[in-house]
Amino acid sequence: MSHKLLLLTRENERYRQLLASCHLPGLQLLDDDPANIRRADIWLAEPALAAPLLAHADQLRWMQSTFAGVDLLVKPKQRRDYCLTNVRGIFGPLMSEYLFGYLLARQREHDKYRSQQQQKIWLPGSYRTLQGQELLLLGTGSIAKHLAATAKHFGMKVTGINRSAKPTAGFDRVATLDALPEFIAGADAIASILPSTPETRGALSAQMLALMKPSAVLFNLGRGDVLDLDALAEQLQNQPEQQAVLDVFNQEPLPQDHPIWDRDNVIITPHIAAPSFPEQVAEIFSSNYHLLLKGEPLTHQVNFERGY
Amino acid sequence: MSHKLLLLTRENERYRQLLASCHLPGLQLLDDDPANIRRADIWLAEPALAAPLLAHADQLRWMQSTFAGVDLLVKPKQRRDYCLTNVRGIFGPLMSEYLFGYLLARQREHDKYRSQQQQKIWLPGSYRTLQGQELLLLGTGSIAKHLAATAKHFGMKVTGINRSAKPTAGFDRVATLDALPEFIAGADAIASILPSTPETRGALSAQMLALMKPSAVLFNLGRGDVLDLDALAEQLQNQPEQQAVLDVFNQEPLPQDHPIWDRDNVIITPHIAAPSFPEQVAEIFSSNYHLLLKGEPLTHQVNFERGY
Repeated sequence: MSHKLLLLTRENERYRQLLASCHLPGLQLLDDDPANIRRADIWLAEPALAAPLLAHADQLRWMQSTFAGVDLLVKPKQRRDYCLTNVRGIFGPLMSEYLFGYLLARQREHDKYRSQQQQKIWLPGSYRTLQGQELLLLGTGSIAKHLAATAKHFGMKVTGINRSAKPTAGFDRVATLDALPEFIAGADAIASILPSTPETRGALSAQMLALMKPSAVLFNLGRGDVLDLDALAEQLQNQPEQQAVLDVFNQEPLPQDHPIWDRDNVIITPHIAAPSFPEQVAEIFSSNYHLLLKGEPLTHQVNFERGY
Repeated sequence: MSHKLLLLTRENERYRQLLASCHLPGLQLLDDDPANIRRADIWLAEPALAAPLLAHADQLRWMQSTFAGVDLLVKPKQRRDYCLTNVRGIFGPLMSEYLFGYLLARQREHDKYRSQQQQKIWLPGSYRTLQGQELLLLGTGSIAKHLAATAKHFGMKVTGINRSAKPTAGFDRVATLDALPEFIAGADAIASILPSTPETRGALSAQMLALMKPSAVLFNLGRGDVLDLDALAEQLQNQPEQQAVLDVFNQEPLPQDHPIWDRDNVIITPHIAAPSFPEQVAEIFSSNYHLLLKGEPLTHQVNFERGY
């Protein structure tokens, strides 16, 4: 029996090259003709490109998402009669590079020393090390675990927030979202890596943000709608020592007229903290395809009810 | 029997507070009267302040340096008839914060995204992760070991340079300075944490620097005279993709008229990568004082011949 694969990504040519060098017996790679939407039983797809076409996917049996975030595909009215897998386990190191790059740049005052250099001023200052500081991670999945490991390497204390508050290796303590007010108030750095689900949307509300330490730094790295961006923009105006580092937004690109673009104590990056490198996605796809051939359960299956 | 301690630091008051809360039986803390230079048998001192006064230290038996770098105290003509100890083992985490802060800022293009934000431009770019990159560390002591551990956490390959090329835990390979030409040419990042000794002075010469990859970044974190600064300034003018991050200089403060202040691809910081925090120095001093009372060998003794 043969399978028919449709590519729905912005990097189809790259994926064609990569898949050509994988051993994928019985797999026919369809071309980009829209008619193939009805013919393919397997999709390798970006959620935003796949979602509007799902109704026409007459043969769809399995979709491998090229992204981690699949909220566009698990909305209540979307179909759920196929197997959806996403990519996981590859983002931790990239997220750590992003989070600790910006955290260290703040902690070790890159901007101050750059400005001193421009004026040829030699003026050593004192500073706080990351050692002993508190990192609060919203999320305890594979990305959060990697961030926690990096934080421990730098001597930080790490609290994780998840659904069960079950003790989790690598975290000094774990609590549920109900306990967020208590822990957000004690954190030097806070990072959300939460997926977008009914429980997490708006979790970082105006009331929560108001509890942050005057010197705290907030990272949003998961999904934009977990955070009330307008409330954050207002708060940061009154709390010049606080900082936000934002990589994900409810609307992307972030609209040009949003006031948060201009704030000195905000760093905005265009969803680049942890992209899926096609090399890694192709590897996950290939491994899942072999499981499919063997009739075994695919890895990284998305639970439509839970939403991730 | 009682001991007399002289403080010769720029933070004498801080040290008075800290030592007052240590249990140091039989220790008399002298005041800052210059006459006490002749009376004290123990000095807690910064090398640059201590070196010119050594000839008058009639009773000196032990000097605890507040810094790691003691080259001013081990020059051939300086006296060697006392026990010199320095501070070690506390700088690794601070050096890692410094090195990886600047390395990640470069790798993850903080400047590019800052400039895009200023123009409200949303433009994701691709980048290289640290994973798989080569870090070359000149030095394999306690600081280098910590840097190597951080690098391994970020998925880098680590080569160390030391005197023996003996395999060292935490390094993928170790070589001697003779092999520097081979390894400097393959490194994505190079960091010197070498002490200043006759063998290391000038090790990063014009010829060595010329072997660096066009995209390499060079850190000097040990001692200034290991690097030919003028040669580096010239090279970086012709290699705009290379970068240098410099925290130590042969002459500090770096003279205002040195052309390297102005180079876009150079970051200059005023010897702040890993300062000795007085809290940690006081702890080392206290622990050594108790060894002295018991007649046991002090820790972190400097070998005058070797120079560190």
